[in-house]
Amino acid sequence: MNAPAPHRFALRVYWEDTDAAGIVYYANYLKFAERARTEALLVRGLRQTEIRATHGVVFAVREALVRYLAPARLEDQIVVTTRVTAITGARIAMEQDIHRDGTPLAECRIVLACLDAAGRPARIPAPVRAALGPLVAHP
Amino acid sequence: MNAPAPHRFALRVYWEDTDAAGIVYYANYLKFAERARTEALLVRGLRQTEIRATHGVVFAVREALVRYLAPARLEDQIVVTTRVTAITGARIAMEQDIHRDGTPLAECRIVLACLDAAGRPARIPAPVRAALGPLVAHP
Amino acid sequence: MNAPAPHRFALRVYWEDTDAAGIVYYANYLKFAERARTEALLVRGLRQTEIRATHGVVFAVREALVRYLAPARLEDQIVVTTRVTAITGARIAMEQDIHRDGTPLAECRIVLACLDAAGRPARIPAPVRAALGPLVAHP
Amino acid sequence: MNAPAPHRFALRVYWEDTDAAGIVYYANYLKFAERARTEALLVRGLRQTEIRATHGVVFAVREALVRYLAPARLEDQIVVTTRVTAITGARIAMEQDIHRDGTPLAECRIVLACLDAAGRPARIPAPVRAALGPLVAHP
Repeated sequence: MNAPAPHRFALRVYWEDTDAAGIVYYANYLKFAERARTEALLVRGLRQTEIRATHGVVFAVREALVRYLAPARLEDQIVVTTRVTAITGARIAMEQDIHRDGTPLAECRIVLACLDAAGRPARIPAPVRAALGPLVAHP
Repeated sequence: MNAPAPHRFALRVYWEDTDAAGIVYYANYLKFAERARTEALLVRGLRQTEIRATHGVVFAVREALVRYLAPARLEDQIVVTTRVTAITGARIAMEQDIHRDGTPLAECRIVLACLDAAGRPARIPAPVRAALGPLVAHP
Repeated sequence: MNAPAPHRFALRVYWEDTDAAGIVYYANYLKFAERARTEALLVRGLRQTEIRATHGVVFAVREALVRYLAPARLEDQIVVTTRVTAITGARIAMEQDIHRDGTPLAECRIVLACLDAAGRPARIPAPVRAALGPLVAHP
Repeated sequence: MNAPAPHRFALRVYWEDTDAAGIVYYANYLKFAERARTEALLVRGLRQTEIRATHGVVFAVREALVRYLAPARLEDQIVVTTRVTAITGARIAMEQDIHRDGTPLAECRIVLACLDAAGRPARIPAPVRAALGPLVAHP
């Protein structure tokens, strides 16, 4: 069985993303990854603001790993690919790779937890589970 | 004579842009305005990295005024319009308005200076002047 | 009558504050100014989180003007001075100047509005008015 | 043999650090960690701007892992502790823990590479090695 196509999100590197070393500041790759996660939900019709209003839950990052392979620079156009590698009752694991014209720049491994308003683990709402299912990569 | 159409740049509001008041943090509207300025040059084939390499100049903001009219919120799609109101030898004045579905959110008034590598005022390179000309709004 | 001493807040410039031009990114001076405003309240025992919980109001920036005079750079130690120039029923005007070893780097002119939970203008709580009074600069 | 005391760096959480969930945005913990690394060098008299000018090298993050344990909130005072766990010829590994009043908020595991101007691995300059030595935690 083929793996499903990952979600692809393209973005531009602006002055705000760079630092005095002339390259993208290391924390900002996590911003790029978050934008891609939000868009991966939006393209399936899921607004996190509505999920919070309807289901009373938010998604919080529990763990983030970034491996930096090559620097992105001002005005670069880069792409974030997002794969879901696991969904359990209250957690989602994702692989988010960032590249420019096929050159890998960074690899992110993200674990998200679904939390209720009190910050306790909560069951992932069915619509979110249904939306992310097609992104799950089975080995 | 009609004013030229302003440059339009659309963007999404992400978690990184918001703050604990639930709205876009006030400094981030200046990030949005800068993205729009960079795109207004790129759409005319001008990369600031190349301008710096070729002409030895960068553009620095000399003055920025922001009037905040209504808040932008998470997942909003907003638009930045950019008009050039004046170009002198070494300075460019711009009006950049930010709105969502026709609702004005913020008005930015930006003055840029063209600087050489030593940080001294420098003449705006002809290609930049030619590219921005069509954006100049004549009253 | 002498003007009161302004509030002084010192901070360091880190990598996150800089951009690929090797200097502090222009929007980040507004971050520095906000930090100074928060500290000017905290030094008088006022936490904005408590003000919101107790009085149901927040302070939102209505207008921000920044004049950029000289760039700050990585590892610089800079100081933000904060003066209150006017307090009306629901608005506060401030002058916040940023300098390094006596060299002026930026001048910020900020107008804040006191807003209730619905975003409507609200009367500035008495403790805030009392706390900021000593910062008011009378010409 | 006792482990050396880690470097401690205290900071305040400001509006810029928070997001619409009311807590510190996940990428910003990496900003806090970077500030602490810069201060750990500065307290030993090492400016990265001088290291770059003198030795022609910069430090780039190769890998960053963050485990998020509890959220930081607006106006919190938090502390970053920095321990060096290994120094090889061109790499430095660090443990940076973030806590508030003894409550652990986040754990960062950072691997830095020393790079020359061309971005190739370079030997860590002796003064940096000497400065970080006292932070090395031996099991």
